[in-house]
Amino acid sequence: MSDYSRENFLDLNTFRGLGEDPAYQPPVLTDRPRDWPLDRWTDAPRDLGFSDFSRYQWRGLRMLKDPDTQAALHDLLCELRPRTIVELGVYGGGSLVWFRDLTKLMGIDCQVIGIDKDLSRCQIPDSEKSNISLYEADCSDLATFEPLRGAAHPLVFIDDAHSNTFNIMKWAVDHLLEQGDYFIIEDMIPYWDRYSPKHLAEYLAAFRDVLSMDMVYANASSQLDRGVFRRADMKE
Amino acid sequence: MSDYSRENFLDLNTFRGLGEDPAYQPPVLTDRPRDWPLDRWTDAPRDLGFSDFSRYQWRGLRMLKDPDTQAALHDLLCELRPRTIVELGVYGGGSLVWFRDLTKLMGIDCQVIGIDKDLSRCQIPDSEKSNISLYEADCSDLATFEPLRGAAHPLVFIDDAHSNTFNIMKWAVDHLLEQGDYFIIEDMIPYWDRYSPKHLAEYLAAFRDVLSMDMVYANASSQLDRGVFRRADMKE
Amino acid sequence: MSDYSRENFLDLNTFRGLGEDPAYQPPVLTDRPRDWPLDRWTDAPRDLGFSDFSRYQWRGLRMLKDPDTQAALHDLLCELRPRTIVELGVYGGGSLVWFRDLTKLMGIDCQVIGIDKDLSRCQIPDSEKSNISLYEADCSDLATFEPLRGAAHPLVFIDDAHSNTFNIMKWAVDHLLEQGDYFIIEDMIPYWDRYSPKHLAEYLAAFRDVLSMDMVYANASSQLDRGVFRRADMKE
Amino acid sequence: MSDYSRENFLDLNTFRGLGEDPAYQPPVLTDRPRDWPLDRWTDAPRDLGFSDFSRYQWRGLRMLKDPDTQAALHDLLCELRPRTIVELGVYGGGSLVWFRDLTKLMGIDCQVIGIDKDLSRCQIPDSEKSNISLYEADCSDLATFEPLRGAAHPLVFIDDAHSNTFNIMKWAVDHLLEQGDYFIIEDMIPYWDRYSPKHLAEYLAAFRDVLSMDMVYANASSQLDRGVFRRADMKE
Amino acid sequence: MSDYSRENFLDLNTFRGLGEDPAYQPPVLTDRPRDWPLDRWTDAPRDLGFSDFSRYQWRGLRMLKDPDTQAALHDLLCELRPRTIVELGVYGGGSLVWFRDLTKLMGIDCQVIGIDKDLSRCQIPDSEKSNISLYEADCSDLATFEPLRGAAHPLVFIDDAHSNTFNIMKWAVDHLLEQGDYFIIEDMIPYWDRYSPKHLAEYLAAFRDVLSMDMVYANASSQLDRGVFRRADMKE
Amino acid sequence: MSDYSRENFLDLNTFRGLGEDPAYQPPVLTDRPRDWPLDRWTDAPRDLGFSDFSRYQWRGLRMLKDPDTQAALHDLLCELRPRTIVELGVYGGGSLVWFRDLTKLMGIDCQVIGIDKDLSRCQIPDSEKSNISLYEADCSDLATFEPLRGAAHPLVFIDDAHSNTFNIMKWAVDHLLEQGDYFIIEDMIPYWDRYSPKHLAEYLAAFRDVLSMDMVYANASSQLDRGVFRRADMKE
Repeated sequence: MSDYSRENFLDLNTFRGLGEDPAYQPPVLTDRPRDWPLDRWTDAPRDLGFSDFSRYQWRGLRMLKDPDTQAALHDLLCELRPRTIVELGVYGGGSLVWFRDLTKLMGIDCQVIGIDKDLSRCQIPDSEKSNISLYEADCSDLATFEPLRGAAHPLVFIDDAHSNTFNIMKWAVDHLLEQGDYFIIEDMIPYWDRYSPKHLAEYLAAFRDVLSMDMVYANASSQLDRGVFRRADMKE
Repeated sequence: MSDYSRENFLDLNTFRGLGEDPAYQPPVLTDRPRDWPLDRWTDAPRDLGFSDFSRYQWRGLRMLKDPDTQAALHDLLCELRPRTIVELGVYGGGSLVWFRDLTKLMGIDCQVIGIDKDLSRCQIPDSEKSNISLYEADCSDLATFEPLRGAAHPLVFIDDAHSNTFNIMKWAVDHLLEQGDYFIIEDMIPYWDRYSPKHLAEYLAAFRDVLSMDMVYANASSQLDRGVFRRADMKE
Repeated sequence: MSDYSRENFLDLNTFRGLGEDPAYQPPVLTDRPRDWPLDRWTDAPRDLGFSDFSRYQWRGLRMLKDPDTQAALHDLLCELRPRTIVELGVYGGGSLVWFRDLTKLMGIDCQVIGIDKDLSRCQIPDSEKSNISLYEADCSDLATFEPLRGAAHPLVFIDDAHSNTFNIMKWAVDHLLEQGDYFIIEDMIPYWDRYSPKHLAEYLAAFRDVLSMDMVYANASSQLDRGVFRRADMKE
Repeated sequence: MSDYSRENFLDLNTFRGLGEDPAYQPPVLTDRPRDWPLDRWTDAPRDLGFSDFSRYQWRGLRMLKDPDTQAALHDLLCELRPRTIVELGVYGGGSLVWFRDLTKLMGIDCQVIGIDKDLSRCQIPDSEKSNISLYEADCSDLATFEPLRGAAHPLVFIDDAHSNTFNIMKWAVDHLLEQGDYFIIEDMIPYWDRYSPKHLAEYLAAFRDVLSMDMVYANASSQLDRGVFRRADMKE
Repeated sequence: MSDYSRENFLDLNTFRGLGEDPAYQPPVLTDRPRDWPLDRWTDAPRDLGFSDFSRYQWRGLRMLKDPDTQAALHDLLCELRPRTIVELGVYGGGSLVWFRDLTKLMGIDCQVIGIDKDLSRCQIPDSEKSNISLYEADCSDLATFEPLRGAAHPLVFIDDAHSNTFNIMKWAVDHLLEQGDYFIIEDMIPYWDRYSPKHLAEYLAAFRDVLSMDMVYANASSQLDRGVFRRADMKE
Repeated sequence: MSDYSRENFLDLNTFRGLGEDPAYQPPVLTDRPRDWPLDRWTDAPRDLGFSDFSRYQWRGLRMLKDPDTQAALHDLLCELRPRTIVELGVYGGGSLVWFRDLTKLMGIDCQVIGIDKDLSRCQIPDSEKSNISLYEADCSDLATFEPLRGAAHPLVFIDDAHSNTFNIMKWAVDHLLEQGDYFIIEDMIPYWDRYSPKHLAEYLAAFRDVLSMDMVYANASSQLDRGVFRRADMKE
């Protein structure tokens, strides 16, 4: 009996953008020795494909933000000095710890809030949870976000769950974001621009009086591509 | 009141791989005249972005297979002369009509079967439905596929719905595919190889005794990339 | 005696743009097995070079139009619904059959006319010649085209022989093309633009009052690059 | 009098690899508004050139390591947990602070030592100098390095000054590096491989018994390209 | 009357590989000033397309060999020190003068022989014809080459006419080339490899006992790509 | 004892832009036979990396100008017909001989002057020194250039030493260049534009009244990129 007859295959689509394993695994080289002899230096294979998504980590936790995105967000934190960072989509939790570590290094008193419909994959050890709050909730239910109303400002709100995004953005504009706060859509703009260009342009234009795109960060990495918005002055 | 306050935004994620409109719209040039004067020929703008996904059509129906994929599938039909083509994922229905037209031109008596959980977007006019059958059904329920058991062979089974794919492939191997029949996974292999490389390799290897990859078609277009499998000889 | 001493070598230049064999040969893989085992899936070679010119076919006949060009011409046929298609350069004849099949599928009563100085390479079987006419004639002699004068409109005239092109275009404008008809120069514009840019711009500009470039199709594929012209309104 | 008649122009060659200003300046957009209106979202300019070298910073200090290099060195610190990091070439000092911050976050008791022939450009504020030592010294004089002999291990030695590199590497092997310690040559390998390939291969081969190239990090970024070496087991 | 009604258009195909004008014309910038002001230096347009074919010249004569090809042929002349250079295809004659100048500078007593079916386009002034001989003759008639039999060796034979190439190569092997002499096919190999790969491989293989490809020059430029052959040792 | 313990390694940085050996060495193929058999023609390795810097030569002397740069400078010599060419940076001396040979072929009575702080690497044989003068001098001392004051015009001044460039350019404008003369900065503009963009733009702008960039040559090769300046009309 061949082993394709296993009971069930996981649906790989559920991993898109996430990766199959929330825990970080250090790289293991299978096709070459890790210690390459220096008298054969000129023959060494190059292009390890090291920039692979599954490799990014922060202190042992998987990190689904690539180095260029990290560099741009570092700059945003430096400039804005946020008191609250909300991220929808927790997965392994690496980026929450990264946000906490960076703001702490910068001397900012900042709460980092992660929201996900399934926190079972979160790998943050208890010893690393200071200034980090986790909520299991459903992004399709806007009531999920009510507890955020009292959050300190400046505030950065990051959609990394990619579900019901524009209705959440509307909720945030109506009930949460103050002038200068950010709403960031990671990863999805290029896809939406390919498959739904008319809807996307129409939806963004709907926010023309309340948000603007920040041109310093909106093109700084492929993950942030045209998705960094700032709460504008209130129009009277 | 700004118009971001509309009641609801559609979730753009549901369009990924589909496009926002199942009906084909002919191209309209907004940034240049369609008739370009020949005494200014050297100044004409190039790179229309004409190869955009939303443009592909077959006789007025949107066609979510690009030209290279069409060329490769044409060759497969020519070689295999299938009596049945099953496609999961109907959307506007253009590719079903295309399969029907091509097999008819080739003189093949072929039934084309489309399965989708939502047939409301299908744009095939009644006058074009000969040799085409449509079923509204849920890919996550394998019972959906029971009626296929009596289909004529040779048979091509195309997964273009991307849900529960490997369990469907297992069902097809167990209950449907005869030697020489094809199971094709469109579009998804490169994504799965990026986000779940270990699972993907493991899942495919599980089928090693019952399927092989057909190297003539498995790299013929980006949509077919490493996703064309053929039912092998039965191992006794 | 070494075999370079054979009597005669064919002049390979005569094949440029044609290929050495007008008959289609299905692909045969020599450097890898066609059936690739799935437990070695990750090691499979990629980039088959499948998009090679010599591979394109339509129902077993070689087809010297690549998939992108086919997609664009499909769209043109859909929009114009031509009653006559003239193509200079027949070679194996695949594109004539393709034009006939497509117009027939679209329900258009269309005559397809192929003209070549050497019809001996034509591979169209007798059973596939309905609505197709073939003329052996010399493009350098404009009298060749006299019989076309009575052709039905709308009409598409395609130069795929690349000999005496602009004088033929002048003849067509003077004696054949009505408003809305097309004159298409395949393949050659980029070469002429490289080697004779001044002549090319001057020749095209000469037609400024009688033809315009159709920007929807003129950049849709590399074979059609800046070579799709439409008969304009008559200037009084 | 035109202003080319100024007394003196600085020699721009002295900036190669450094940049003209050791202090970090936040980006200022001069050719577009920073706040881009969302109803003109589709017209927004892209490709800001944001990945420009002069932009990288760490908490307000210029950082001459790009994001990919930071990601790779983060991984190395995580794996090795070094007690000492020596960097030749201080410039603004950003990377020293970055090394200190990262090792501290990782809970490692690590001394970071910067050596430069000109410390006047160093921008590290006094309040950020814990666990960081600075020495003004000349790399061409190996006596410079004597004080390092008592440093704690594991140890990482980074040449970012690019002067007398191989003699320093020899000194480090003879007097400093223990098994498992690293010697890293940043930025220069591709240049040397272009202009002095024979010398480079010969010099590296000379170290074949005492160092090996670590294939996990040696191709992880263009700045680390084939320049990460690890002290091997002593051969008896 | 529009001016497309001119009597005759030249057939642009006859210019392929030649260009429309055998005389060299110095570049004239039409879309920008030649003198660009230095206080607007950062705004200067780049990518002049200066490497355009029609631009290459040698001392005022058009030169249909690009700079990389010149560099490689310079090296070949240096190494071989030929006494005779035969080139089929003269056009403006620039490369004949270039061969003469280079061999003279190298102190080689070398005759340069140009053969073309139409010498009317040759632009070599009488004052520059020392050591250069011109023959008007038809490459399709092998008797054309009989007068070459007494030429001095070493000898380089270059096919830049692209007509009857392999029969001429056979004639040269049989009647002209001595061991170490070269037969070079310029420009055409990539085209023939695209359109007639089987014939090309078969024809070259026919010469396996009498010629070999010289790997130093056969890939040194795109014009020489896999087309530099050397007369091998006679097999007894 | 391993041989890394050699007394001294040369500092490879001193070779940047020069190469490790001023003498030209002909290419030797180590990884393939030079004579490739024609019956295995289709398997021949391609991409020899023949365009490598260390390969360029002129009549046996290394030539640190690539073929595209040679083509552009040839055109400049043809147009300007200079009586004096000054080059800072001699190294092997190949380009001095090349300048001398070209101007002589063009019938120009031209003196070629090479200046370097170390002439010991110069490989020009005594027999090739007609019309070439060599000075050992230090570019950082402007007095070095005093003897040039009497040079004949038109004059081309090339900075290929890359030391103190802008002060030398100022000296040349003040004391040497007449209207129409050229000052050329080779190789360095792209580096300076990367590492010191503000200084570079400011320094060039300082010369706005006395020099302009010649757009015919300033983008003709990567080595000349935006670095070809012409002495403008004197402003009264």
